[in-house]
Formats: sequence, C-alpha cells, structure tokens
Amino acid sequence: MNISKQMVTLNQDIAGQEIGIPVYDIDCGQPNCKTVYIQSAVHAAEMQGSAVIYHLIRKLKALKLNANFVLVPNCNPFGRTQRAGEYLQGRFDATTGNNWNRFYHFDNEIVGRFISEFDEQLADWSEKQIVDKFRLFLLDSLNNKLNKDWGVNTAQFLNIKLQEMASKADMVLDLHTGPSSTRHIYSPEFLTEEAQWFNIETVLSIPIEFAGALDEASFTPWYRLKQALKQRGLDFDYHVDAFTIELGSQENICLAQASDDANGVIQYLAKKGLVEGQENITPKTVAVVPLSNYKTLFSQHAGMVEYIKKAGDKVQKGDVLARVLNSLEFDNDSAIVNIHAPQSGTVILHYPSAAVQVGTQLYKIAVES
Amino acid sequence: MNISKQMVTLNQDIAGQEIGIPVYDIDCGQPNCKTVYIQSAVHAAEMQGSAVIYHLIRKLKALKLNANFVLVPNCNPFGRTQRAGEYLQGRFDATTGNNWNRFYHFDNEIVGRFISEFDEQLADWSEKQIVDKFRLFLLDSLNNKLNKDWGVNTAQFLNIKLQEMASKADMVLDLHTGPSSTRHIYSPEFLTEEAQWFNIETVLSIPIEFAGALDEASFTPWYRLKQALKQRGLDFDYHVDAFTIELGSQENICLAQASDDANGVIQYLAKKGLVEGQENITPKTVAVVPLSNYKTLFSQHAGMVEYIKKAGDKVQKGDVLARVLNSLEFDNDSAIVNIHAPQSGTVILHYPSAAVQVGTQLYKIAVES
Amino acid sequence: MNISKQMVTLNQDIAGQEIGIPVYDIDCGQPNCKTVYIQSAVHAAEMQGSAVIYHLIRKLKALKLNANFVLVPNCNPFGRTQRAGEYLQGRFDATTGNNWNRFYHFDNEIVGRFISEFDEQLADWSEKQIVDKFRLFLLDSLNNKLNKDWGVNTAQFLNIKLQEMASKADMVLDLHTGPSSTRHIYSPEFLTEEAQWFNIETVLSIPIEFAGALDEASFTPWYRLKQALKQRGLDFDYHVDAFTIELGSQENICLAQASDDANGVIQYLAKKGLVEGQENITPKTVAVVPLSNYKTLFSQHAGMVEYIKKAGDKVQKGDVLARVLNSLEFDNDSAIVNIHAPQSGTVILHYPSAAVQVGTQLYKIAVES
Amino acid sequence: MNISKQMVTLNQDIAGQEIGIPVYDIDCGQPNCKTVYIQSAVHAAEMQGSAVIYHLIRKLKALKLNANFVLVPNCNPFGRTQRAGEYLQGRFDATTGNNWNRFYHFDNEIVGRFISEFDEQLADWSEKQIVDKFRLFLLDSLNNKLNKDWGVNTAQFLNIKLQEMASKADMVLDLHTGPSSTRHIYSPEFLTEEAQWFNIETVLSIPIEFAGALDEASFTPWYRLKQALKQRGLDFDYHVDAFTIELGSQENICLAQASDDANGVIQYLAKKGLVEGQENITPKTVAVVPLSNYKTLFSQHAGMVEYIKKAGDKVQKGDVLARVLNSLEFDNDSAIVNIHAPQSGTVILHYPSAAVQVGTQLYKIAVES
Repeated sequence: MNISKQMVTLNQDIAGQEIGIPVYDIDCGQPNCKTVYIQSAVHAAEMQGSAVIYHLIRKLKALKLNANFVLVPNCNPFGRTQRAGEYLQGRFDATTGNNWNRFYHFDNEIVGRFISEFDEQLADWSEKQIVDKFRLFLLDSLNNKLNKDWGVNTAQFLNIKLQEMASKADMVLDLHTGPSSTRHIYSPEFLTEEAQWFNIETVLSIPIEFAGALDEASFTPWYRLKQALKQRGLDFDYHVDAFTIELGSQENICLAQASDDANGVIQYLAKKGLVEGQENITPKTVAVVPLSNYKTLFSQHAGMVEYIKKAGDKVQKGDVLARVLNSLEFDNDSAIVNIHAPQSGTVILHYPSAAVQVGTQLYKIAVES
Repeated sequence: MNISKQMVTLNQDIAGQEIGIPVYDIDCGQPNCKTVYIQSAVHAAEMQGSAVIYHLIRKLKALKLNANFVLVPNCNPFGRTQRAGEYLQGRFDATTGNNWNRFYHFDNEIVGRFISEFDEQLADWSEKQIVDKFRLFLLDSLNNKLNKDWGVNTAQFLNIKLQEMASKADMVLDLHTGPSSTRHIYSPEFLTEEAQWFNIETVLSIPIEFAGALDEASFTPWYRLKQALKQRGLDFDYHVDAFTIELGSQENICLAQASDDANGVIQYLAKKGLVEGQENITPKTVAVVPLSNYKTLFSQHAGMVEYIKKAGDKVQKGDVLARVLNSLEFDNDSAIVNIHAPQSGTVILHYPSAAVQVGTQLYKIAVES
Repeated sequence: MNISKQMVTLNQDIAGQEIGIPVYDIDCGQPNCKTVYIQSAVHAAEMQGSAVIYHLIRKLKALKLNANFVLVPNCNPFGRTQRAGEYLQGRFDATTGNNWNRFYHFDNEIVGRFISEFDEQLADWSEKQIVDKFRLFLLDSLNNKLNKDWGVNTAQFLNIKLQEMASKADMVLDLHTGPSSTRHIYSPEFLTEEAQWFNIETVLSIPIEFAGALDEASFTPWYRLKQALKQRGLDFDYHVDAFTIELGSQENICLAQASDDANGVIQYLAKKGLVEGQENITPKTVAVVPLSNYKTLFSQHAGMVEYIKKAGDKVQKGDVLARVLNSLEFDNDSAIVNIHAPQSGTVILHYPSAAVQVGTQLYKIAVES
Repeated sequence: MNISKQMVTLNQDIAGQEIGIPVYDIDCGQPNCKTVYIQSAVHAAEMQGSAVIYHLIRKLKALKLNANFVLVPNCNPFGRTQRAGEYLQGRFDATTGNNWNRFYHFDNEIVGRFISEFDEQLADWSEKQIVDKFRLFLLDSLNNKLNKDWGVNTAQFLNIKLQEMASKADMVLDLHTGPSSTRHIYSPEFLTEEAQWFNIETVLSIPIEFAGALDEASFTPWYRLKQALKQRGLDFDYHVDAFTIELGSQENICLAQASDDANGVIQYLAKKGLVEGQENITPKTVAVVPLSNYKTLFSQHAGMVEYIKKAGDKVQKGDVLARVLNSLEFDNDSAIVNIHAPQSGTVILHYPSAAVQVGTQLYKIAVES
C-alpha cells in the first residue's frame, strides 16, 4: 500500500487564508479495485469519527488491501472554527441555519436522463460499463450544480465538494455522533444484514429516499438505476454501500473506543473482501429498527432536566425518563415534573444540556413495534 | 370600535418566567364581520412591521371599521432575546437552525378528509356553512399537531400557536423585512392584482404550494378546497387573502416610512370594504414578477465586499454589482474582483455585511423574463 | 417559618415581556436575626446550584431557623435564554462579552467617606449601630450607581440589582459550577477554617481584593471597614461570610448530589448557629490552597483532545494530562501530542470539549507549593 | 521601494489548517530609517481599515519613502471566521468573551528593571543606543510572556504575536471602526497636536495609561522610560507615535472614503518626514476632546429604537436623541418613550440595531466641558 495526504483547498476566508480539509489517499497497488470513501465531522463537534480514521490508517497498514481508500477527517472547514461559548456550533451554517448534512445533491431526473440517452446501448453494456458511464453522469451532475452563474449556498458548496470525492467510491461511510448518545447506524433497507458487521448495537433501517444526507445521496441513484434497468428486463446488481454511523457523543473523543469502532469497520471491509488478515472481534447482539419506529420526544415543559434514563437504556412505557425542575415551584409539589416514556423501547440519545425549553428534543428512542 | 390587549403566554423560560406575545384585539362592533390577522417580527430582527402595527392601531381609530382585527407585533418570544454580538439572531432557532418561518402546519390530506366526511351535505351547505366547517377542521388539525404524545419542536410550537390565531382570519399579513432590502410583497398568483393596492413597488407572484410559511399555510388549504369543490361541480368563491410583506431592512425601524406602509395596508382594507374613511394615497408603479424570476446570487469568492448596486437599483446584465477586496492581493491587480450581474433586472436586496465567504447570498434580483 | 415567593421583575424584553427572577423569602419569625442570601446560575448554564436551593428549601422546613433566608435560583434572566447550539451561552453578555460575574459594585472610597462623615460618632456607636449605618451607606452607593443619568451596562444592571438583595445579608453564597469540574470553594483568606464546614474537598483561599465578583463585593467593604476602625483603635468584629461555591460541571443537574451539597451548606449554617436540628454528615478531607497555587494550563496546540486526567485526579509533574490528535499527521508519529502536567497537584477542572485551539483553557490545577 | 508579502502562520485550526495573517513589508531601501506598523480589523467586522491599507499600498508606490512599513490587514484570524447570523462577531473571543483588543502586554515593572540593569551605562549611551536596548527589553518581555510553561489565552496569544511586530516600529496605527459611527481618533495626550494631521474631525485625548489596547501598549513604556530618565536628569526625546483610528461603521467598506482616509495617514507621515511627494488635502476643523468628556449613554428601557440623532450630529442637552417603541403600549400614549441628551455635545456613534435591552450602549457622545 501507498499512503499520501494533502490539505485540499476548498476556498478561502475573507483575508485570503486557505480553507482546506486533510485528505488521505491509500492506494492498494492493485488494478481495477474498489474504492472506499470515509469522512468524519461534517458536523464539526462530532469528532469521534476522526479518531476512528486515525486508527483505521494505522490498522490498514497491517492488512492486505484489496481496495483503495480516501479518508477525510474533519471534513467541514467552516464548522470547525465556529465557536459558541465553550462548544463548537458545527451543526449548521451560523449565517443561514442550513444543516451541513442536508445539502448533498441528488437529481431526481438523472436515472431517466441516463436511460434515455443510452437507450440503445444499455443492453449491450457490461455491468462495469454501465457503472462507469453512470458514475460519469453523476459527477457531471455535481459539476453542473456547482458551476451555475448564480452559484450555490455555503452548505451546498461544501457538500458538493465532498460528494465529488464520495461519488467515485463503491462504499461510503459518513461518521457522525449524536448529542449524548449511544452508537447506532443508519442503513438503507437493502443493507441491514450487512450493516450488522459493523458490530454496533442498533441498526436504523431507512427507506431509499433522498432527504439531503450523504448516505442517501450515495445509494439512492444506484438503487433507482437498478430498479429502472430491472423494469427494462436488465439485470444489474451493483450498488453503493453507504451508511451514516453514529459513534457516541459529540464534543468528545475516546481513542480506546475508536479502536473498537475501527475494528467494526474493518470487519465489514473483510466480509466484503476489501481487506484481508484482520483480527476476529466478539460479535454484539444487534437490533434492526425501522426508521418509522425511531421517535423523538420533544419537551412540553421548560426547566432544568435531570436525565434519569441514559443512552443505551431500555425503557418501558410509562417509565420516568427525566425530571424537570421548575424554579418557580420550589415551595410546593410541582417543583418536579416527571417525563414518562410514551412507548417502550431503547434510548438512543438525549439532549446534552439540562436547560430545556418547550420543543427541545429531549430523547430519541427506538420504540418496539 | 373597542380595543383590548393582553400578553398571551405561550410557555415559560427555564426559571418559570412567562414567555408571551402582545396581542391586540380590535372589535368593530358589528356582527358577522370579517377578521384581519396581522403579525410582525417572527424573524425577530425584522422590526419595521411592528412600527407599521403601531401606526395601524392609531389610524384605525380614525376610520369606520367593518372588520375585526388581531394584531401581534413581536410575535417571536424566542428570537427576540437571542443576541449575537450587537445584532439579534432571530431568523432561526439557535439550537437547531430551524427557520422560525418554515414550520407552520399544512396537512396535505385535509381537503380530501373534509370532503369525504361531509360528502353528502356539501351540496346543500351555503358558502358560509362550508367556510365555518372547514375552519373548524383546520383548527382541529392544528390542535392535533400540537397535542401529540411526542410533542413538537420549538419552531413548530411557535408557528402553530400563531397559526391558531391566523386560522380564524379571512385576511392574513405576515410582516417581514429583508437584510439590506427594498420593500416587496409575496402574493399568491391569484391575488397579484389586489396585491398592488399595498402600493409597494414589487410584487413577487408565488405558486399555490406549501413550503412552510404562514401566507402559504393560510391560502393553500382554501384554494385546494375551492379546486376540489369545483371538480365536484360546486361553486365556492371564498379564499383567504394572505401575503408576506417585506418592509425594507432588518435591525432598523423608521416611523415615517411605517406610516406610509400602514397607509398602503389601509388602502387594501378599504378596497376590500373592510374599512371606510381613509385618505387617498399617491399610487406607485408596481411590477409583478413571477417567483421563478426572483434569483439569488451566491458569492464564489470570499473577501470584503463593497456593494455598488443597492436595493431598488435597476441593473443591466454585466453591470458591476459589487467589488470584492482580497487582502492577500493588495500589491497586484487581483486586489479587487468585480461581481457582474448575470441578468438584467431590479436589485431587491443584498447581504448586510461586507464580510462574505463562498456561498454567501450576495444579492437577490428580480430578473427580466 | 414562613416562606413566600415572587417573580421579581428586573426589566422587560423588546416586546414588553417582563424579565424576572424567582425570589424565595424565608422568614424565621424571630426579631433581629441574621440574613442569609443564596443565589445560583448567574452563569446561566451553571444550574446545579438551583438544585441545591431546591433541596435547601425542603430541608430548612424541617429545621429550627435562627436566620432569615433570601434564595434566588436562576438569577440571570438574560443568560438563561441565550442559546448557542445545544448549550446555553450564559457566561457572558452575548453583545459585549461582559462576564455576568464581574460587574458587581465596590466603591474603593466608601470606607474613607463613611469614616470621615461619622468621624465624631463612631467611638460612641455600638457594633450594631455601625453595621446598620454602613449597610445603608453600601445600599446608597448601589443606588447611586444605578440611577445615574447615563445609565449602566446590562451586566452592571443585573449585578447591582442582585447586589441590592445580597447587601442586606450577613452571609452570601454565590453558587456556580465549572466546565468539567470537581467541587471547590473560593473563600476569603480569613474564613478558610469555616469554609471547610461546607464539606467540599478543595478550598481556594483568595486575598481580600475586589475583582468584580459577588463574594468579593460582599466581604471586601466590611473587611476594609474593620481594618480602618482598628487603625483608629476601635474594635469591630463584624464581617460578612461570602463564598463562591463551585458545584461540579455545567449544563447538568443531579438531584442526589445536590442533596449532599445542601447538607454541607446546612452544616455551615448550623456551626454558625443559624439553624438547629440538622443531621450529622460524614466529614471529608479538605485541602486549602492559596489562589496563587491555582494555575491554568492553556493549550499551545490546536486539535482534538482526549482528557486523560479528569477533575479530581491527583497528578505528578510530567504526567500525561491529555492527548491532542492532529488530523494532518495521522500517517506519522506526530499524530498524537501528549500534554504533560507542568507541576504536581490536583486537577480541579478541564475544558468541556475535545475541540481546542491555541489558548484554550485546557486545565485548572491546584498545584502543590 | 520594495514590497513583499506573506501569509504569516500564527497557529492552526483543529484539523491542522494553518491560521495566518497577510503581512506586507515595504522596504524603503534606506539604512537606519524609521518603521511604521499599521494593522486593521483586530475586531474582525471593522473592515474599513483594510480598505485604507489597500489604498496606502497603492499611494505609497507613488511617493518617496523615508520609512519602512509593515501592514497587516485582517489581523485577527480567529474573529474573521466567527459568524453570528448574517454578521461577523469578531469583537471578542466567542469562548471566553475576551475582547480581542484588550490583551496586549505591558509589564509595569519594565522601566524599573531596565534602569536598574543598565544603571551605570545609561548616562553614556546615545538616544539611539537606549532606544535599541529598550526595544530588545520589550521584545524579550513579550517573548517571556508567550513561552511560559502554562501558556496564555487565545486573545493574549493573538495580541502578543501582533505586538511582536508592532514593537519594532516607531509609529503604530491600529485601524478600527465603531458600530454606527463617525470617524474619530484616540490620541495620547502628548500627541493631540500631531493627531490633527490625520484630518479626522474628532480627536479623543487619552491619558498615558495601559488598559490593554495596542496604542497604549505601544506608547506607554516609552513615555514611562522618558519620565524615569528625566528624573535621573537624562534627556530622552524618543517616543512612539501610536493611535487607534476609528474609521466609521463596522460591517461595511467604502473604497472612496478609504482613499480619503489613506490621504490623511499620508499627510501625517509627510509632516513627520516619513514620506515625500504627497498631494495636499483640504484640512478639516478638528475638535480635541478629553476622554473624560466622552460619555456613554446606556438604555434604561427595552424596546425598538429609532435613532433620531446620527453619528456626527451636534446635540443640545435635552434634545430627543432617539425614540423607543414599546409593543405593549401601542394603544396609549406610552407607546413611544423619548430619550433625551443628558448633556450637549457631538454624537460620535450609536448602537447598530433597533433592538435594545436595558443596559444597551445606545450612544457615545463627546460632551462639551
């Protein structure tokens, strides 16, 4: 293997200082092999994925690689300098409120255009030929999006620049964390079996729709292409493996945990034949939960909250999840309001601050069907 | 007329301090009359509409009223305390990035449900009966949205609370401003004639679709109802007049200008027969521009910008709109980059700061077809 | 005892909504007794003190009180609505950067003025007479500060309003927390013995100087008065017991811990004779550290930090406190930079985020002499 | 002349991206000549000074130079990426609230140490020898401040890095702006005559004290040295000319105005013999106002403010400066509260937003004595 790195310049700040992202390229030295793209911290405070990339680079060195890798820790140069008190507000553009993870590009017409353009050749092409042609189509679509006379907004600019790299890959991992969170994965419905190879306890199964995120932008066009070709009687088995992996809590890194998570990623790679020589890891029990069962509990009370149930806890309907302290009622029995679980399930994450207002996202819970 | 006011409590802050909005009720003293709902500053720094409401209250006292009024200046109690340096960041929820003007509720199925529920009675009902019944349906839908076990986010909570008041009205004005902006109106396509009565130079004609704003949430269900009844051969002429009015620049109030704008609102009310006895005003030339011609120019350069073309200016394709100063090139001819107009048209607004990055929304221009 | 409460209005927001603080008054029913003033959360995200006040109110009900109490949880109505991402930025005025805990008032000339005004009477006055007169002098000084033609800034306004209540008390507790912190107390040098009654492991002994905080503003004038009277040969033993107590970490409340801390406060009150009937608590070993030994370690590296040593840990000079991960060096041995303890001591707190820049306050350590 | 530039790296961001400032060095080609240091935008949104530096570079090319120049536009790499809504919050460290213009270093003991170290040589040294030796002392003091085991905070780090460049200069200009402001200069008392050469209407005369700013840090040690040498009977006439120049309003650049201001700077340089060949400019009437007459009016009301008196206006005691609109009183005569001028004088600046709370800095006025 050969590893190279560069600070890839995206643009500059108002004084001309370059705004860049570190990009590691690992070349396995084999021809015609697959490419794996992994980025972390597009929400800048979600840094644990960067620690996972640190370990991946070290661990990959010890393995036989059958794929090339493009690794981008700290992929958001705008968010990672946006301080708000003692924390990083790297979740959305501080000017517009645009979530840095919702402006990837997907052209709903692209499959239709592709098929009509190559209508007569498709039946003759090999799968590889179709893949190569369609990938060029996707890259062209990104390029057109960027270069319009009127420009694009900052989140679109960042997302498309990252997507230009991701679109060349056969596997795409977008490493995130939650607020105060346990580890979990968003997997497209058709990959929930494979998703369990990451050895993370909860797999959220999401429909094949585009809502702006990188995983969706990565698997959706290929899935649609497959469906369209099938309708025409053409067999086409290629897809992009794309996942959003949530690696615990924001504002924090833990190198020991990151090593475990890197092992999960490597197990996935090994099962797919993309690496060889990895150590075995102890498998965890994994639950697959449909996205429709992943519910958010918004606060109806303002106050100071003690989170009784923590990320990872099982809860029964009616259990006290949290207690809200109301400063104006300290002299009577309304001082504490209990928040009950509306359904049974597993706590995936809770809000990271005790200070909540009406509408604060208190908990996300994977509820039982 | 009779005017009453109250601070309507929406919720509380973490110490139990009430969070409220001032609401003025003006009762014209007549039975069965229409209701006009006007709110301002849902984007908290957009305060000029509050000055317009100040003048409206004074001016309405001198007129004969044929409608009741509900007036809500400073309708966003969350945004109006959210300081960011010397400005108010009241455009989006500082926790989530949610735009305070994108979470009004519209239930896409509501017309279908209404018609199937009252299938047999509709043909016999008067227009007033249909209006009353459908309005209850709408209020019920809002109520259901709020009271779910799992709650709603803060922007939804605020928007639905406001919408509960607006849904009772026959005319809804949502008063906004732009950043550095000239005055303009968003009007549904079917009201662009009437929109000119406000005497504001630019009317942006928008399609009858719901994208989250109050004007859309107000006129869309009624327009859909009308269409659905028409398909069944029933005549139904009722609609809600709903507009978003942009009254110049944020972070600023000007009482003299507010008086003029209040006169425009009163002219609209008078033309509709809702008030009588108003003074005549000198009409302005008004251009109606389809939303598809309202374009945003995003910066492709970072730097310090001098805005040459100002809000209200006419520009020709190729004109220099702005100059970007690049600190790192002060010793050569790249020190200044000119930004040219991609098309001819009228500058409606520009960004309020000289400091821009890639993707900053530099200008919005109503371009010629 | 008799307990009453009110939301004391300090001012209003831009829409006329009152800005208030909850104030609990507990009257012990005895004449001429002492007053204890306790406030929390002047840095709004430092909420654990409010939970302590919650327990104090409950526990005081079960005791015999020989003092009156004024308790103000959530004493900062400006900070407690200032959201920044998912956290509260309630440490400083978001407009000016003014720390909400540095604008209490102390008039350096006040002791001199007092003595010259009552030069001839002082020798004849009882201690109580001197105390009463000087307290009026202090309140007058606060009042003059507020009512100037030119006004005061927002932090001064808040601080003086709080200080008007605190100045009437014989004992003042200002309840804070650190970022990721262990519990500790700031005590004036002359009270470090008594400070140990709070049963908190570290007492930081501070000189009798005014740097803007409430504890300093509370004890300094009385200490100076005592010194000045002593110089004139007058015995005067009165002082105000004032402490800043740091109750762990911000953005968090824990009711069980709060109960323990309330017990510590009650032990202090009992030792001073201000309450009777309390339970005994197990004493902790307390270290008293001079402020000059309380050191801040600022980061000289930017990167993502894993905090190895936690709040409360003992460290030896040279120990690895933390590891900084550098994204641009993942392929070589500079990937991780170790941060070593410059001296031996006890970690009191560390920064709450892994994302640090040059100059970030990484650790505060009570070093050994 | 010879001009060179570089992006001087100060540190890096959390991903290893360099954090730098553009620095222009202009070498006049003569030996032993003076050095002029000019920086702008240490408060990042105060960009007009960068436009002045742009013009200075162009204009200096056409002149004969008798001095070297170091020019640093956009000297704050931390502030210039810190967005808050549509504005730049570049006035203070978003983590700590530390004003970026209050952490320059001045060692109160430095003159004493210098004199005691060179006690026996001072009488024999030439002025140039003393200047050179003392400058080394100053640089050494900066260096020691930076390199302590425990580090310095971010504002100190930035300020000392800039001060290392400024300390080598004989003339130091720190270019700022106000919020909504007219142009004015802070001048040390002993330079108020010369300060008028900048051709800016108001000179604020400040005492020779250190409160943390660059101008003070630049002239104070030399002034103290002069005084100390005089006490020993030694004549020493050297001083550093240091000024803070306020060039209008923040968030804005205007190239035409910047050209005028560059001409004022060049007139100053010409009068000092540092450049030759400049055009004559029409002198303005300049008022010199002692700092004790420069007063801040803080709001005692919250509400929406119309600023009647603008920057540059003369006001008489009692004039209405501004009107505060109160949303909760629109139906009565308290709807508008007038704010009156407490004294006669010249408005220098006002707050840039209509949204004010209690304690907002509404106006700064240079009052008549």
